[in-house]
Amino acid sequence: MDSKRLAREAAKTLQTYVTFQAVKLILEQLSETNPSQAIWLRQYVLDNPIRDDGEFLEGLIRDRKDLVFRVLTVRAEIADTVLEFLPELVCSNITEANVKLRRSMLERLTQTSNIPSDSDGALPHPELDVPPERDSQE
Amino acid sequence: MDSKRLAREAAKTLQTYVTFQAVKLILEQLSETNPSQAIWLRQYVLDNPIRDDGEFLEGLIRDRKDLVFRVLTVRAEIADTVLEFLPELVCSNITEANVKLRRSMLERLTQTSNIPSDSDGALPHPELDVPPERDSQE
Repeated sequence: MDSKRLAREAAKTLQTYVTFQAVKLILEQLSETNPSQAIWLRQYVLDNPIRDDGEFLEGLIRDRKDLVFRVLTVRAEIADTVLEFLPELVCSNITEANVKLRRSMLERLTQTSNIPSDSDGALPHPELDVPPERDSQE
Repeated sequence: MDSKRLAREAAKTLQTYVTFQAVKLILEQLSETNPSQAIWLRQYVLDNPIRDDGEFLEGLIRDRKDLVFRVLTVRAEIADTVLEFLPELVCSNITEANVKLRRSMLERLTQTSNIPSDSDGALPHPELDVPPERDSQE
């Protein structure tokens, strides 16, 4: 596992997501303070979905520099307040979801199948990184 | 800003992303160890894009429990090794990108415009949370 590459890609995705959250928040604020700007920005985001934060902001610079400044400010605030808690939150959520899914799968296996005695019918081995070579379902 | 809601939504997005990374990694491994399984999984992901990790895994349980176990193992590993460094990485990337974009915008403003003297032509105020009410572009 190339941890550095994974971290770099995850960071880029998270940065784009934080920018998306900032734009969403600004849209909510504008809906109350300046509905016509909100309508404009909503349409702009529909026409230019935020797939890459850099490209999105570069595009927006041409049309509305004031909104770009605002996005930069808000996304920095979100990053400061929210990111700190994410690793612990995501790790515990994943652990919890994994336990639930494993339990659910084991329950289904024990309830629905008469475990066959041939070698192909053994329970999967979650602890193995490379699973048994079974192509029976292709 | 509702930090708790933002954190919850960001955590869910990141969890789905980590699951996506796990599947991608398993696909790379299978391409070398078991090409026919790799072809099957690639097609499955094309037919069932990973928009919500829970829904994706629930679907996969029906077809390939062994692969679900493997995804759970790999995504827990990724979460353990990668997430820890993300907040610092993303915060510093955002700070750096923000500085670059602000500098680039200020350079464009000072190079290309003769700053008008009327009240509408003032520079934007990035430090304000609610920008001036300007509807001139709608």
